[in-house]
Amino acid sequence: MKTRAWTLIGRPVGLPTRDLFALGEFDLAPLADGEIRVRNLWLTVGPAMRVRMSAESRGYLPPYDLATPLSGWAIGEVVHSRCGKWAIGDLAVHQYGLRDVGQGPSTEFEKIPIPGPDPEHYLNALGSTGYTAYVGLVEIGKPRPGDTLFVSGAAGAVGSTAIQIGKALGLNVIGSAGGEAKCRLLRELGADVAIDYKTPGLLVDKLAAAAPGGIDIYLDNVGGEHLDAALALANPHARFAISGMISSYNQERASDTMHHLNRIVTQRIRVEGYLPFTDHLDGLSRYRDQMWSWIQAGTFRPWQTVREGLDCVPQVVEDLFAGRFTGKPLIRL
Amino acid sequence: MKTRAWTLIGRPVGLPTRDLFALGEFDLAPLADGEIRVRNLWLTVGPAMRVRMSAESRGYLPPYDLATPLSGWAIGEVVHSRCGKWAIGDLAVHQYGLRDVGQGPSTEFEKIPIPGPDPEHYLNALGSTGYTAYVGLVEIGKPRPGDTLFVSGAAGAVGSTAIQIGKALGLNVIGSAGGEAKCRLLRELGADVAIDYKTPGLLVDKLAAAAPGGIDIYLDNVGGEHLDAALALANPHARFAISGMISSYNQERASDTMHHLNRIVTQRIRVEGYLPFTDHLDGLSRYRDQMWSWIQAGTFRPWQTVREGLDCVPQVVEDLFAGRFTGKPLIRL
Repeated sequence: MKTRAWTLIGRPVGLPTRDLFALGEFDLAPLADGEIRVRNLWLTVGPAMRVRMSAESRGYLPPYDLATPLSGWAIGEVVHSRCGKWAIGDLAVHQYGLRDVGQGPSTEFEKIPIPGPDPEHYLNALGSTGYTAYVGLVEIGKPRPGDTLFVSGAAGAVGSTAIQIGKALGLNVIGSAGGEAKCRLLRELGADVAIDYKTPGLLVDKLAAAAPGGIDIYLDNVGGEHLDAALALANPHARFAISGMISSYNQERASDTMHHLNRIVTQRIRVEGYLPFTDHLDGLSRYRDQMWSWIQAGTFRPWQTVREGLDCVPQVVEDLFAGRFTGKPLIRL
Repeated sequence: MKTRAWTLIGRPVGLPTRDLFALGEFDLAPLADGEIRVRNLWLTVGPAMRVRMSAESRGYLPPYDLATPLSGWAIGEVVHSRCGKWAIGDLAVHQYGLRDVGQGPSTEFEKIPIPGPDPEHYLNALGSTGYTAYVGLVEIGKPRPGDTLFVSGAAGAVGSTAIQIGKALGLNVIGSAGGEAKCRLLRELGADVAIDYKTPGLLVDKLAAAAPGGIDIYLDNVGGEHLDAALALANPHARFAISGMISSYNQERASDTMHHLNRIVTQRIRVEGYLPFTDHLDGLSRYRDQMWSWIQAGTFRPWQTVREGLDCVPQVVEDLFAGRFTGKPLIRL
């Protein structure tokens, strides 16, 4: 038995491009006791993988090895099981993605209910993307009625989720994205104000115009100039939930010029980085119940861009970092 | 009745110098009902006043007006009272400083116990200086046994206090200061390692050598390169208590080049600015009991530089910003 899996054949300098990837065929060992094998139905990629593509990872996970199967979140259907808790046909969310067949210890797979939500939701609103937005907004942001929320990268996977959760919680929501089409999407998703960071002018001035009363919660997955502008507009006791800093991922050495760090003191701002699946797993099932009820009520609209087939992975990665997607990129096999 | 008070006659560019100050004589209005008048015994100055010396304050308090009496923390003895709760001879800590006689509503004065600690302690270990170190270290830093604490500006007023509180709490303590004499002081005060940030080499490399196991708590009153180095060495779930950013105070426009902001996410760091006398007053009296018992037991050694006479105020300000003091600068009248 074999799997077809994407591998990295070179390290990116700057934006990753599709030529850095090669599709390989790898033998699968016979299943050991306690292991399961899945045929993947859905794959996805995310900005955090950029950090692991460099030879020296600056992240919390080690760099990808060259010429060995890459990994990533995926949905699979069990095709072989040597674990009593799993049966053929069960659905699993797991991290043996970017390949067509995955296998490993059953403890590394999470069972998805059948019947239940469409499984791809577990790669987006019901998965790490949605939970990243929720933990940042609710557990770290601690919203109060009337608060103003600012979301950077708001047309992206986490951002488009945060915009909608913010509105579901009754907040005044400002999002920033690059280009008029993305800004239109933000407004469709419920944002009260959309900022196009690509138009001429300083972001800090645009944010000042969008938030005349300042901001109380900032959900950041961009960093750099966005973080600096948010500091400049922060109200006293603002909470900054930092889920990523994509602006630095493609730099060989991150370098951010900050003008407003002193506001951390004068406004008594709390800036907190977090990894929801590392430190906040306790609340995940409660979150999923809440989000699923929002989806069923039409309060929340999962937002994704779907591509087809294992072959498209390198192009999806390139498009992700070039900012060509809105919402979560999903790949249907 | 008159008071002699220092005023600002110009705005500093860069480091403040003594020629920016002039001593004036001002008439004191007859005391209104509920007011008291004090003769000041001790004055002090602190780095935060730099922010208010500029025409546009970037701080949480408005800029100083020119040619009107400056303010600052002071200890005074009541010489006249129109409030039933205050009697001649009572001692007060208050903010009508940088002058010889102060007066105002009695609610703006806090009574100091007689007999009790020497009153000047209330401008240092028992005052906002000591409490700034304590709140940052204990309430925000949440120390655990075996934690490593890094303190910037460690020979200064807040820093020299934090070094000693850190040791009283059983932490591994690293301090940074400029020059060998200050570093010797840090070791005398109990620091396990003292870093001289003025010697050749990158601060981040010096901190890496001083903290091979990383840092868990950072007490920052410097910002800039110090904050960036602390981010680079932060352990997972590190707590950064930001009480000031003196590195930016003398810049016309703050500008910090940061290379390690992304560590906020990967290490899940919490960076929190605070103003102890604005948001944490609840714990002050409990803190004073703790600190006074440390002082009496010899566990804590209040550290200050004492100058004499109202006339020396401009020189003390200049020396403070030129880094010529260790500990808290106190002026005895």
